[in-house]
Amino acid sequence: MREFELLEHIYEHNAALDQRVVIPPGDDLAMVRLGDRDVLIGVDQLIGGRHVNLETTPLDLVGRKAITRCLSDVAAMAGKPVAALAAATLPPNFGTENADELFDAMHATASQYDCPIVGGDIAFHSDPSHPLVCSVTVLAEPGSAGVIRRDGARSGDAIYVTGELGGTIDADGGGHHLTFEPRIAIAMALAEMLGDRLHAMIDLSDGLGRDAGHIAERSAVRIRLDAAAVPCRHGVTWRQALSDGEDYELCFAAHGDVPTEIDGVAIRKVGEVAGVTDPGRQRIVAVENDREIDVSERGWQHESSDS
Amino acid sequence: MREFELLEHIYEHNAALDQRVVIPPGDDLAMVRLGDRDVLIGVDQLIGGRHVNLETTPLDLVGRKAITRCLSDVAAMAGKPVAALAAATLPPNFGTENADELFDAMHATASQYDCPIVGGDIAFHSDPSHPLVCSVTVLAEPGSAGVIRRDGARSGDAIYVTGELGGTIDADGGGHHLTFEPRIAIAMALAEMLGDRLHAMIDLSDGLGRDAGHIAERSAVRIRLDAAAVPCRHGVTWRQALSDGEDYELCFAAHGDVPTEIDGVAIRKVGEVAGVTDPGRQRIVAVENDREIDVSERGWQHESSDS
Repeated sequence: MREFELLEHIYEHNAALDQRVVIPPGDDLAMVRLGDRDVLIGVDQLIGGRHVNLETTPLDLVGRKAITRCLSDVAAMAGKPVAALAAATLPPNFGTENADELFDAMHATASQYDCPIVGGDIAFHSDPSHPLVCSVTVLAEPGSAGVIRRDGARSGDAIYVTGELGGTIDADGGGHHLTFEPRIAIAMALAEMLGDRLHAMIDLSDGLGRDAGHIAERSAVRIRLDAAAVPCRHGVTWRQALSDGEDYELCFAAHGDVPTEIDGVAIRKVGEVAGVTDPGRQRIVAVENDREIDVSERGWQHESSDS
Repeated sequence: MREFELLEHIYEHNAALDQRVVIPPGDDLAMVRLGDRDVLIGVDQLIGGRHVNLETTPLDLVGRKAITRCLSDVAAMAGKPVAALAAATLPPNFGTENADELFDAMHATASQYDCPIVGGDIAFHSDPSHPLVCSVTVLAEPGSAGVIRRDGARSGDAIYVTGELGGTIDADGGGHHLTFEPRIAIAMALAEMLGDRLHAMIDLSDGLGRDAGHIAERSAVRIRLDAAAVPCRHGVTWRQALSDGEDYELCFAAHGDVPTEIDGVAIRKVGEVAGVTDPGRQRIVAVENDREIDVSERGWQHESSDS
């Protein structure tokens, strides 16, 4: 069983979605219309032993990551955060001090991004061996230049990423995945600067191979990455940079001139849209020394043990 | 450590909440203003081994309850559901068929209440012994007569409940807590019929003692329940009916005439507001044979083992 198969199953249900649903499941956030307002909404979970090592990670960084993961989805849509809900299931012996530290960090992080936590839920596991599960819901609005979806990439577009990729999890348990800044301001600036030349965007949580693959799939195009152009974190190969996941950078498809940096964060061209989807050919490839390598499965797959 | 102490800690952070937050944490749902629209939002968790016995409960009823618990909070505010998000953390060996059954039930239930599931998240525990955790977020709008909060009860009000209380969990693992109907339509009908005479409302999830106590506390009033008037499910004493929890009925404070039933669901007067809070006296009491009994601690407290 794989996460994506299950999510596909969820999308199937949405054939008959009503008019209130502007962006159905399948993008970084859903969008719902209320009167004349559009509201973006999404949820993300952080699980001890899965997304974060509770043995080695200070609780304030756990709380921080629970919020920033979710805010990275707001960035992916060029949205503006409005409010968040923080829910947690704690082991019964978690302790008040620990719970305070966790929730304080969530509050401090959310406030930093102008996204007050307006509610939540706290529950306890029946057994001390059961791990911390945080689930954070974010409510957002379209930024001033509107929302950017995953499905708008087209022929003639180049593919860009912000920052550096790969090596996000240090061997000692720390690393970029705990300290990254959601690219909210940069995404909104891009949407304003590029206007209708910014065609599709996603945040890199599962790795560039798989996430650019989502843009390709939903836009029904083929994407060709230039292996040598992938901005790799120090000591990381391009293959690792495509696969490691948890970059929380932006990947976008745009036409025409794109700035080389915004607010000190580099923006690099890493590939291009190479025509519409051609049955029998891989949807996303990396080109190294003129050879095309299928990278559609490069990235972190949230597999369960019976897959 | 108790759930309510932790939630108090969360509320403390909200002193400086911004103008977008119309109803801060502490009610059944929060309310946020977006332009000229008010949006209600809340999250609820359902944990295997805690809120539901996975050994004895069919998965379709688990999925149903994950949704209806959350919709009961919408009813409590006299709100109208708009959309939901369904997140789940599954044991790694949960299996595709089981996951499908769970999500199908969530979809079917949400659709039944005109609340499409527009997104979600699926993740896996690292160990098969770790239990299912569902978290459901609900987005709602005020009903046509506006929202009803917990904090508006006042002297002269009577206290009412819908349906019957107590005995919600059968010894064999079934029971009302798995099959209840969230009182969304009844709550909106009450808000329309009573208008500004409907002063405060809550849904009964933790038991009448504790939940009516939330109305008393947030309204700064004292509530006196009539033990003999509490509508008890068959075979249940009034003390059990106040304590069992998981009734998912409405409890409200209103002035003047109130219908005795709506849509076949009985509405019964169970007490009254007995003045403003008087320091040194219990906030909520039940009167039995002219004797006042403190029932403010009657109800299900989500305690952890180190409390």
